[in-house]
Amino acid sequence: MIMENLKGACIIGQSGGPSSVINASALGAMQAAFKAYDITHVYGASHGIKGVLNDELYDLEVEDPSELELLRYTPSSALGSCRYKLKNWEDDDSEYFRILEIFKKYDIRYFFYNGGNDSMDTCNKISKFMLKEGYACRIMGIPKTIDNDLFGTDHCPGYGSAAKYIATSCMEIYHDAHVYDTGTVVVIEIMGRNAGWLTAASAIAASKGCGPDFIYLPEVPFNMDEFLAKVDEMYKKTGKCMIAVSEGLKDKDGKYISEYGSNLASQTDAFGHAQLGGTASTLANIIKMSLGIKKIRAIEFSLLQRCAAHCASDTDIRESYMAGAAAVEAAISGMTDKMVGFERSYENGKYKCNIKLLPLDIVANAEKKVPDSYITEDKTGLTKEFLDYAMPLIQGESALPMEDGVPRFAHLKKQLASK
Amino acid sequence: MIMENLKGACIIGQSGGPSSVINASALGAMQAAFKAYDITHVYGASHGIKGVLNDELYDLEVEDPSELELLRYTPSSALGSCRYKLKNWEDDDSEYFRILEIFKKYDIRYFFYNGGNDSMDTCNKISKFMLKEGYACRIMGIPKTIDNDLFGTDHCPGYGSAAKYIATSCMEIYHDAHVYDTGTVVVIEIMGRNAGWLTAASAIAASKGCGPDFIYLPEVPFNMDEFLAKVDEMYKKTGKCMIAVSEGLKDKDGKYISEYGSNLASQTDAFGHAQLGGTASTLANIIKMSLGIKKIRAIEFSLLQRCAAHCASDTDIRESYMAGAAAVEAAISGMTDKMVGFERSYENGKYKCNIKLLPLDIVANAEKKVPDSYITEDKTGLTKEFLDYAMPLIQGESALPMEDGVPRFAHLKKQLASK
Repeated sequence: MIMENLKGACIIGQSGGPSSVINASALGAMQAAFKAYDITHVYGASHGIKGVLNDELYDLEVEDPSELELLRYTPSSALGSCRYKLKNWEDDDSEYFRILEIFKKYDIRYFFYNGGNDSMDTCNKISKFMLKEGYACRIMGIPKTIDNDLFGTDHCPGYGSAAKYIATSCMEIYHDAHVYDTGTVVVIEIMGRNAGWLTAASAIAASKGCGPDFIYLPEVPFNMDEFLAKVDEMYKKTGKCMIAVSEGLKDKDGKYISEYGSNLASQTDAFGHAQLGGTASTLANIIKMSLGIKKIRAIEFSLLQRCAAHCASDTDIRESYMAGAAAVEAAISGMTDKMVGFERSYENGKYKCNIKLLPLDIVANAEKKVPDSYITEDKTGLTKEFLDYAMPLIQGESALPMEDGVPRFAHLKKQLASK
Repeated sequence: MIMENLKGACIIGQSGGPSSVINASALGAMQAAFKAYDITHVYGASHGIKGVLNDELYDLEVEDPSELELLRYTPSSALGSCRYKLKNWEDDDSEYFRILEIFKKYDIRYFFYNGGNDSMDTCNKISKFMLKEGYACRIMGIPKTIDNDLFGTDHCPGYGSAAKYIATSCMEIYHDAHVYDTGTVVVIEIMGRNAGWLTAASAIAASKGCGPDFIYLPEVPFNMDEFLAKVDEMYKKTGKCMIAVSEGLKDKDGKYISEYGSNLASQTDAFGHAQLGGTASTLANIIKMSLGIKKIRAIEFSLLQRCAAHCASDTDIRESYMAGAAAVEAAISGMTDKMVGFERSYENGKYKCNIKLLPLDIVANAEKKVPDSYITEDKTGLTKEFLDYAMPLIQGESALPMEDGVPRFAHLKKQLASK
């Protein structure tokens, strides 16, 4: 197939939850776009698709290249992000026509959208709408999610860095929690509403002898009695117990464990709203009450697991950059309506990450969970197969530049484009 | 004064809360002790003074030197720690005579105790008892506390690394919390019951434009109305507010802010015990209820701020090592009954850390708080004088060796000595 050249401007947008490396993907896309003969101007959308709808595009051509280079190591979304779901155009096409209007205004012929499941849904809808309207443009999704739950790709940019942070932090907490000869229980809560990939990363720490005794993923229905029995046994045997749990743990009836707290006591605020603790603090309270263990600590990695750029994986940074650049290169070569994905291969036993392209509509809204073969038979650990999968993704350390003893992150001008 | 040589074995003990660098001090002491002609054998106390009382000493001479070298980068207390307060010997001298018995059994003539306020109290009591009993030995305290609240020393080993972790993490959370164009409030809780040094470190992030808007230290009585007014004003102006608070915040009547939660609602567990949230989650709840702000997140740095060795300060590592080595060298040269302290000087504007020795009894149980001159007039920030004080302590990054993408911490044999 001989593709005609398509000349015009491009928009790069970031969407969904932050990660340590989404800006590395943005940088990859920007630098490829700057180089591309067919791309006449490079814009960044302020807060993802909201910036397109609001006619708030940053002129990325006025940015200092050396500041842009720092995006490789700067966490969160430098252009701003959003959680914004477009309606189906069958129900309401006004936003789609608004996007088309902006595309025409700036002569946008390339649209690169960087995000997770919901963002690929947005990307897919826009792509299909532009096809339907016969507006010539190329639309590519760039994957990003610490949750690692995008369908069709071996893994997702962002996961390796979050996994490295989680494994490292678990090892450090293990050392801390084992310092006294008195009993200690630690419950660590890790992100993941439906998929347990992040929590599974704590198994890397366990494989080094400094990790959780038990790991609970949302893929497995949670049984409180079995859980308490396991903690009790380990605590009686060793005086310690370290547990990693996904925030999204549910029992067999689909009830979140974090909701168990409201059964235990009348924990309501001044307005009568139930005050739900997190999953870890709920479990810590239940352990305290049921097993009479006094020294117990609930720890949430909270936002840091998705923004701790100082502990990013170099492999993840490089692959994220590559995903951004590949999206632009594929679009220039004529591809559209695709998401960049990863496929792994091994050359002489050495891990290699290759680019593949996936149709946007098979990716949008699909969700990849941790497969059974990665979960041990007793459902409280991860198999060697999982470790073989995860280990290559966390290799290498970030070359994040430091200034005055703290990270030197990018400072962009973010100058709005006018037309 | 000409000192007679004192030949005999030594014990190195670790006590109190973990830090990222207490093992660097232990390594400094061990390596100096191995080299010292007068020190006939090097023991480590298992779990601090408890190991002495229980006759559980590790034979450090059988350890692999390359594993010991990794102690420089390994967090928490590799020999085990304790929180154990000796009685005054006037009330009960049985434990002191037990310690003397163990000292005699192993021919201990050198005792090095590494810890914070309470540990210096232990060290001081043992020192004075041995003097009283006329048992020839030399007893030295090696400072350690992330809290930075030891009296008489410019700063404490452990503080620089914790401060670096806190500043770095605040900068990263700032990026995460500013990613959406929707309102967000973040309350970060940092350790420090009585002294605000750790919370103050968040001002380093603020000085880089990526830190908390307001910082609340336990040195300043907390006023809830003024706090809410400030948050409200900032949120209305910018749609964001980031706040750093010490866990030990108290109001003017001495009531902990974390206890405010129990007034707001009947938060009791199944046994009727009040469930106190942390300071950050209590404040987050109060902001939610009083100001009607929905998106608010309470984050606790929890254990990681004292054990995140991957983010340690190289300056802190080097100084901690130096403190351990200096304690041994001073003892060999005839000193006893002292704690090693730090004094800073500037040579051509360049920070330099010098060793000084302080009498144990002036250090024990004294507490150093953040001085008024370090706190801004409005009491919600830190002055340039504080930044000038703190910045040199966080310089340089740890050379922590990595293996398989995660830290390679020390694995000691911990073989019990028998005699």
